[in-house]
Amino acid sequence: MSAGQPGRPGVVVSGMRPTGRLHLGHLLGTLRNWVALQADHRCHFFVADWHVLTTDYEKPRDVGGFAEEMVLDWLAAGIDPERSIVFRQSAIAEHAELALLFGMFTPVPWLERNPTYKEQREQLVDRDLSTYGFLGYPVLQAADILLYKANGVPVGVDQAPHVELTREIARRFNHLYGETFPEPQALLSPVSKVPGTDGRKMSKSYGNAIQLDEDPGQIEARLGRMATDPRRARRTDPGDPADCPAHALHRVYDTPDELEWVDRGCKTAGIGCLECKKVMIRHVVEDLEPFREKRRELAARPGWVREVIEDGTSKARAIARTTMAEVRSAIGFAVPGGGDS
Amino acid sequence: MSAGQPGRPGVVVSGMRPTGRLHLGHLLGTLRNWVALQADHRCHFFVADWHVLTTDYEKPRDVGGFAEEMVLDWLAAGIDPERSIVFRQSAIAEHAELALLFGMFTPVPWLERNPTYKEQREQLVDRDLSTYGFLGYPVLQAADILLYKANGVPVGVDQAPHVELTREIARRFNHLYGETFPEPQALLSPVSKVPGTDGRKMSKSYGNAIQLDEDPGQIEARLGRMATDPRRARRTDPGDPADCPAHALHRVYDTPDELEWVDRGCKTAGIGCLECKKVMIRHVVEDLEPFREKRRELAARPGWVREVIEDGTSKARAIARTTMAEVRSAIGFAVPGGGDS
Repeated sequence: MSAGQPGRPGVVVSGMRPTGRLHLGHLLGTLRNWVALQADHRCHFFVADWHVLTTDYEKPRDVGGFAEEMVLDWLAAGIDPERSIVFRQSAIAEHAELALLFGMFTPVPWLERNPTYKEQREQLVDRDLSTYGFLGYPVLQAADILLYKANGVPVGVDQAPHVELTREIARRFNHLYGETFPEPQALLSPVSKVPGTDGRKMSKSYGNAIQLDEDPGQIEARLGRMATDPRRARRTDPGDPADCPAHALHRVYDTPDELEWVDRGCKTAGIGCLECKKVMIRHVVEDLEPFREKRRELAARPGWVREVIEDGTSKARAIARTTMAEVRSAIGFAVPGGGDS
Repeated sequence: MSAGQPGRPGVVVSGMRPTGRLHLGHLLGTLRNWVALQADHRCHFFVADWHVLTTDYEKPRDVGGFAEEMVLDWLAAGIDPERSIVFRQSAIAEHAELALLFGMFTPVPWLERNPTYKEQREQLVDRDLSTYGFLGYPVLQAADILLYKANGVPVGVDQAPHVELTREIARRFNHLYGETFPEPQALLSPVSKVPGTDGRKMSKSYGNAIQLDEDPGQIEARLGRMATDPRRARRTDPGDPADCPAHALHRVYDTPDELEWVDRGCKTAGIGCLECKKVMIRHVVEDLEPFREKRRELAARPGWVREVIEDGTSKARAIARTTMAEVRSAIGFAVPGGGDS
């Protein structure tokens, strides 16, 4: 869970799509990992607005407005703008420039072979994924990452093949034009999959998500109805925590003693499912309370989130420009004896 | 040969790849057309450095140095930097941004169906054309053209399908996000194909090109050996100008009287091939003399060509930024109540 050379802080890049307010899955699966990485890495966290269009070009939504709402969620969760660089992808033109360049030497078969490409085309049948942009999504991601010379990329397991492709693109660039980019490592999140109330992966589009702004009553009601091991149809039927969606949240939140009580109670039918979940629900409510409080406080500071993004954008742009100047010189685009025209 | 609404000057965009000094084929097939269009169009002529990488990423060449040499050729040929905007494509990041966006809604089958794509993959067997960048070349071209809201694109016949694809991309954008772009017309060059000394299309890579900087003696010697109708193996064999490569240059340069003399002399074997070509060669030499003179003069002004490019880049950038701001707002990327961050 660490990147970089010994003695040098690693550089981390990660992004999230601005498609609305965040839910518990984002907090546990991604944000907590980001917050932890801040301690000893130079982190770049970006609003992945171009990424939205790779799968949703047909429904232009208020990406600009969502960007600020999402960044407020990040900040309330503990992303520290004094430590980490927070910015919008589309505000830094160098992402598009480097993606354009990387595309020039990326073989189409590398992209067609990418497992996520095949999977998503099979699964997201309601979207038009026959586009050039969707095919080239990993090329854009490679640019996002390498523009800041990241050596660590916090991702979920399903995104690991993309990081592998980024490594291949870095290697190919270095081979063609000279050593320029590091080969970044995937930093897998300790919490890889957060189930929603119906047991499927938590997702706003499934309607199974606990939103970060829900109040305690709502959270209690919705998690109280969360799916459990189907074997426990009656109170007296014993179950197995390994087959209980709610248990994934217990594993995140419960103390070792509580976990032991849950395990024994479930397997012996010593406790009921609601009784069991209440332990975990209390933790969730307690966890989200300070988050909501801090978010309210931050949202009340007019213009602040915009300032944070503008400041981060300036910092990111300076790094991006340095990288692109180096890249232009490596590929032979620099004007001899002159600055960039 | 004209674009735009009645009473409004049309907007024209065209580019050329910086791969070295230009030859007679560029002058007659492209530059003369550009110079003519300047009279009543707002013209944008760009050094297409990103385009070089779509087919030649493996051999990074001194694109930066070639850019200035090529622009000197343009200026010597009559491109007027007071009238026309001359710039480098890669210096305006908006080309890459708009290409990235257009790719999001461009179906891969549109690109695979493109006749140039299929043809070039068959013909340029010594290059690696399996890349994402080569597949997306028409998307980049659409961005190059539409960024300046061109309604006219001077091209050779072989590039006409690309302009058609640009029109489709403009239509699709307008349909998805609201009326933003015009649908540009191809403005075919009056001289479509200039043969080289061996009768094939004039091209530096065939070694059959008359370079614009050759001196009169070289031009006379090389055009004196230029291929003619193979029927005229002996001086007494009659030929047909329609089958004579050199006749393409006669058609560009000769007066009507000369053309009649050539036609009769060839068909009746009344004149020999060298005697015939000498008429045309004199015109070529006379045409290139003032070009070379002017180029020498311009090249002697230190820093001037760089200034021309910098000035054009500023002008092009201002237009490109205006278009991209409009585009961001159309797709929902603008920050509500705020400027671009």
